Amino acid sequence: MLSREENELLCRVGPGTPMGELMRQYWVPGALSSELPHPDCDPLRVKLLGEELIAFRDTDGQVGLIQNHCPHRGASLFYGRNEEAGLRCVYHGWKFDVAGNCVDMPNEPAESDFRTKVKATAYPVRERGGILWMYLGPRTGEDLPPLPDLEGNMQPDEQTGISIFQRECNWMQALEGDIDTAHVGFLHQGAIKAESAPEGSWARYALRDRAPRYKVIDTEGGVTYGTYRPAEPGSTYWRVAHFLFPFYTMVAAGVLGLKVAVRAWVPIDDEHCFGLSMSKLGTQRRLNQSPNRNLADAPLLPNGADWYGRYRFRANAANDYEIDRDKQRSGASYSGIPSVSLEDHAVTESMGPIYDRTNERLGTSDTMIIRTRRRLIGAAVALRDRGTLPPGVAQPEVYRLRSGGVVLPSDADWTEVTRPLQQAFVDHPGLSLDVLGGVPAV
Amino acid sequence: MLSREENELLCRVGPGTPMGELMRQYWVPGALSSELPHPDCDPLRVKLLGEELIAFRDTDGQVGLIQNHCPHRGASLFYGRNEEAGLRCVYHGWKFDVAGNCVDMPNEPAESDFRTKVKATAYPVRERGGILWMYLGPRTGEDLPPLPDLEGNMQPDEQTGISIFQRECNWMQALEGDIDTAHVGFLHQGAIKAESAPEGSWARYALRDRAPRYKVIDTEGGVTYGTYRPAEPGSTYWRVAHFLFPFYTMVAAGVLGLKVAVRAWVPIDDEHCFGLSMSKLGTQRRLNQSPNRNLADAPLLPNGADWYGRYRFRANAANDYEIDRDKQRSGASYSGIPSVSLEDHAVTESMGPIYDRTNERLGTSDTMIIRTRRRLIGAAVALRDRGTLPPGVAQPEVYRLRSGGVVLPSDADWTEVTRPLQQAFVDHPGLSLDVLGGVPAV
Amino acid sequence: MLSREENELLCRVGPGTPMGELMRQYWVPGALSSELPHPDCDPLRVKLLGEELIAFRDTDGQVGLIQNHCPHRGASLFYGRNEEAGLRCVYHGWKFDVAGNCVDMPNEPAESDFRTKVKATAYPVRERGGILWMYLGPRTGEDLPPLPDLEGNMQPDEQTGISIFQRECNWMQALEGDIDTAHVGFLHQGAIKAESAPEGSWARYALRDRAPRYKVIDTEGGVTYGTYRPAEPGSTYWRVAHFLFPFYTMVAAGVLGLKVAVRAWVPIDDEHCFGLSMSKLGTQRRLNQSPNRNLADAPLLPNGADWYGRYRFRANAANDYEIDRDKQRSGASYSGIPSVSLEDHAVTESMGPIYDRTNERLGTSDTMIIRTRRRLIGAAVALRDRGTLPPGVAQPEVYRLRSGGVVLPSDADWTEVTRPLQQAFVDHPGLSLDVLGGVPAV
Repeated sequence: MLSREENELLCRVGPGTPMGELMRQYWVPGALSSELPHPDCDPLRVKLLGEELIAFRDTDGQVGLIQNHCPHRGASLFYGRNEEAGLRCVYHGWKFDVAGNCVDMPNEPAESDFRTKVKATAYPVRERGGILWMYLGPRTGEDLPPLPDLEGNMQPDEQTGISIFQRECNWMQALEGDIDTAHVGFLHQGAIKAESAPEGSWARYALRDRAPRYKVIDTEGGVTYGTYRPAEPGSTYWRVAHFLFPFYTMVAAGVLGLKVAVRAWVPIDDEHCFGLSMSKLGTQRRLNQSPNRNLADAPLLPNGADWYGRYRFRANAANDYEIDRDKQRSGASYSGIPSVSLEDHAVTESMGPIYDRTNERLGTSDTMIIRTRRRLIGAAVALRDRGTLPPGVAQPEVYRLRSGGVVLPSDADWTEVTRPLQQAFVDHPGLSLDVLGGVPAV
Repeated sequence: MLSREENELLCRVGPGTPMGELMRQYWVPGALSSELPHPDCDPLRVKLLGEELIAFRDTDGQVGLIQNHCPHRGASLFYGRNEEAGLRCVYHGWKFDVAGNCVDMPNEPAESDFRTKVKATAYPVRERGGILWMYLGPRTGEDLPPLPDLEGNMQPDEQTGISIFQRECNWMQALEGDIDTAHVGFLHQGAIKAESAPEGSWARYALRDRAPRYKVIDTEGGVTYGTYRPAEPGSTYWRVAHFLFPFYTMVAAGVLGLKVAVRAWVPIDDEHCFGLSMSKLGTQRRLNQSPNRNLADAPLLPNGADWYGRYRFRANAANDYEIDRDKQRSGASYSGIPSVSLEDHAVTESMGPIYDRTNERLGTSDTMIIRTRRRLIGAAVALRDRGTLPPGVAQPEVYRLRSGGVVLPSDADWTEVTRPLQQAFVDHPGLSLDVLGGVPAV
Repeated sequence: MLSREENELLCRVGPGTPMGELMRQYWVPGALSSELPHPDCDPLRVKLLGEELIAFRDTDGQVGLIQNHCPHRGASLFYGRNEEAGLRCVYHGWKFDVAGNCVDMPNEPAESDFRTKVKATAYPVRERGGILWMYLGPRTGEDLPPLPDLEGNMQPDEQTGISIFQRECNWMQALEGDIDTAHVGFLHQGAIKAESAPEGSWARYALRDRAPRYKVIDTEGGVTYGTYRPAEPGSTYWRVAHFLFPFYTMVAAGVLGLKVAVRAWVPIDDEHCFGLSMSKLGTQRRLNQSPNRNLADAPLLPNGADWYGRYRFRANAANDYEIDRDKQRSGASYSGIPSVSLEDHAVTESMGPIYDRTNERLGTSDTMIIRTRRRLIGAAVALRDRGTLPPGVAQPEVYRLRSGGVVLPSDADWTEVTRPLQQAFVDHPGLSLDVLGGVPAV
């Protein structure tokens, strides 16, 4: 439960808000490389942290991200011509390069130097692992922070899996669903009987005990939790997962040490976000094996012509997420909603555009959520009041993490024993997906 | 004409508003039994007095009405599973019974007693005559008020007629149309010549004189009016009708003593309401004879997936209420709008979402409306300032009324003579619908 | 660049705003005669300067313009019956003539004189050249100002060309596009090579030099500019155009002295306007030759049932103005947007509903825009603070102007030499459209 003021501080990310300023300290994965497929291709609308921007790939393949409204008289640069190393406004022909410099101003007399006085707001963009990383903050040039060392974003193209979808709600309530391992046993697997998973499989342990205990610890880059349940006599099934500043999750599904995956919950604005997963193919079961496609597990609508027109699920609030009440009733599905992503979609959107946390009732399974909120609010306040650089901005190495499950002797110290398995960029050839055991591994 | 402040007080019904608090003293007919057709059926979205609620029928057939957002972390209980005597949130499996008790909390450790500390807001529901009566007020248990003795709601199923439709405007301007007998001669019958009705029929009297005189008197449960016009020499045609607290009308159409019908104008929120008629079949002419169906006299749209998705007419503002200007011009129809309900629909919605009463010009035919507003405002203020229980809350018998027309000797005292005919639950075998005389009896 | 306060003052036109009061001093061309095609035809919704009004043509052919909400109880008079010299509300039969007098009140007793105390707000309407001129200001009767002597509106029917289309943005940013001759060489002709126009044609001069110089001078009725470029050695190609109070433009395309055309940018409200062109057929090249039709150069949507339902382009923001990126890329079209009107439509709407002028960067080509804003703001403030009658209200003759291009000796004084050609209602038989030279004459 938060006060109204805390909730506002946690959720709002526009320019000048404390959380918005915190996010502007980081590189933001704002779009896919595949959305700007080749030099001089069509420009792209990108709304990020409440700012309306136009991304374009120039003749050299460089990606620019500039203000939507032409600095001259405000026509949208979306309608601009992407030509010869710059985006040209069709209204009067002003042309801007990826750095926001006005490189041509053909409606002014030749002798005018007005061109050199005009600059469009332009944000740095870097490209890695199929993602366009965007920096909307105060630093420039040499002073820009490093990209985070996220293993899922640092694979060769053919091993990279990406999924992306939009959600019509605040980023934080979407994120909270990801660090809430308890919901899996209900929303996604509530209709599955423990007996349906093989004896000795992790799935069996998880389905047998749907109220796991939580351990939550602060880390340099965020918060880590381990949930634990009995496995076989004398052993315990642990699920280890992370929140990483400012909006990343590494969820507990899969095999710790094997799985390489991270999700960003990127705010479009206060009431829209997108979930963007970056993973190494073959290291978890749910994603299929097609490289570099959108692996979202439900049909998307065609792109539309506005700031919220990309990556929308066909199933949405207007059609009750295509719920099938007969399947819900018969137990063929716990929710009746046709996929795991849509189930998450439905519950988090149904909380409202910005969830009111002044009335909730949090239980022990929400320990991780409580701690994560505190870290975020604390860091935003520390930045606002004391200029404290938030966690991870200058430490790319704190993102070198993996998450997932493991079975340990019941008397083991989980933080000690799992530490090597949590390390990214390490091979553990003995690990196998087989232990999961026949149930959808969410 | 009202001041802006009076108009706000009259119209707004959300939690904490004076008129909203007044309405919360009463049972509200909030949905139909047929919308929750059997035990463990799909839950139903019900927005009432500005509150978003979920209704469900449990395994025993009991109907619950609880808050939309799960008390835990706010997922909509609309997507919940209606199972084994409770509605279970699909997010984490919390389950609530019709009283709002959390009867299962499977994501918490077995030893936790957190479950007993959580309660969902739940409102009492009673079921009678095909209607789900809902109480959103402060009383509980033994202290709940009685249901009103509304005869139209107290018939055997096979004799009960129900019509329901939504209106996109404030409840009060919808209600005002019902206590405004003068509009019938124009909006609904303006194109009908007096000569088309048989000599000696009441229709003939009404069509011959479209500017009736009004008598308006306060009653225990609301306001009653009688309008009168000449009938045959020495006799007078009276039409007697009622407003009953907080939002009921019994209109003047039909035969006094015979007709059994009442309409509730139930606020969904300040800018939406629904009209819900409850009647005894065969006692008036307009309604057809199918029991327990929606008798609305115009096609409805399919239900939609939001808080305003039920009982919407296909003809609406977006299509100009399917007006046929040729019929309007030719006189085949006065308005050109294809049914009586749609005519009312069009004019009341066209007044705006909340009609601005600071600029109106009321005439003698508006006497009943003026008095009704005063009673409502007075009762809301008396409740707010002095805690005065509003009319009828504790007196179910004040609702035992009938309305309709009657021909009296011109020197009769109408209040005295019609009193026995206004009494509900009484047989008058001599009365007949035939006197109305061949014209649509609105 | 304007301050926020100046921008608000410039753009907002509702009742009581300074610019709204300025506009209410003038006759406003609010609808087409053809929208009320014959006596007693269907009434018409007209939203003008933020006021919702109903226009109707009475039995004598007179046009009335009255308040939307019936003065009685607020039903929309749009649903009214247009019959026997008045518009009758279908709710209770109140009937109003074109002057707003209540001429029948059939629901009141015959002896009542209430009718004489009720008056609907009604605005004077005059009809000329296919246009319904409406006056929403404070003057009445003999004191009404004259209509402006706009030549394009004073032609015989068969020589009158009208085009009209709605734009979903503030009127002023639409108008600014019209007095911005520099954009033509980019938005509309950016893909056209100078060599494609014949040697010696004006088109050749314009395409050869897309950064013309500006001369801007205040006039009695507004602002006039001349832009100039080299023509042949020793001669200069001038384009002369006008802004006229409060919202008229005469653009620079065509032949000065020959072309008869004016456009009004009429505010529907602060975020919607329509462009209404009135011209003499045959005096410019772009318009085709059908008299008295809507000559808009792109497909329109069917009329819809609301205050913004008329004259909407099918190509709009929701479909990115039907942009063809392949044509844009190949140079078949500079913008890829399929017509001149749609190009203007796209860029001005993309500036936002009300363009924020606090961040723009104006160049030398914006001199005319800067001066026009100053004149408008100055006149609105002078009216508000000192009651000064704005330009042209009492001087219909200041509208007797023409605009267009001309080639002059390079040492000529353009204001002197073009003065006779700028005069309306004068024949210059020697002038010809042929000088323009083979390129779309925008």
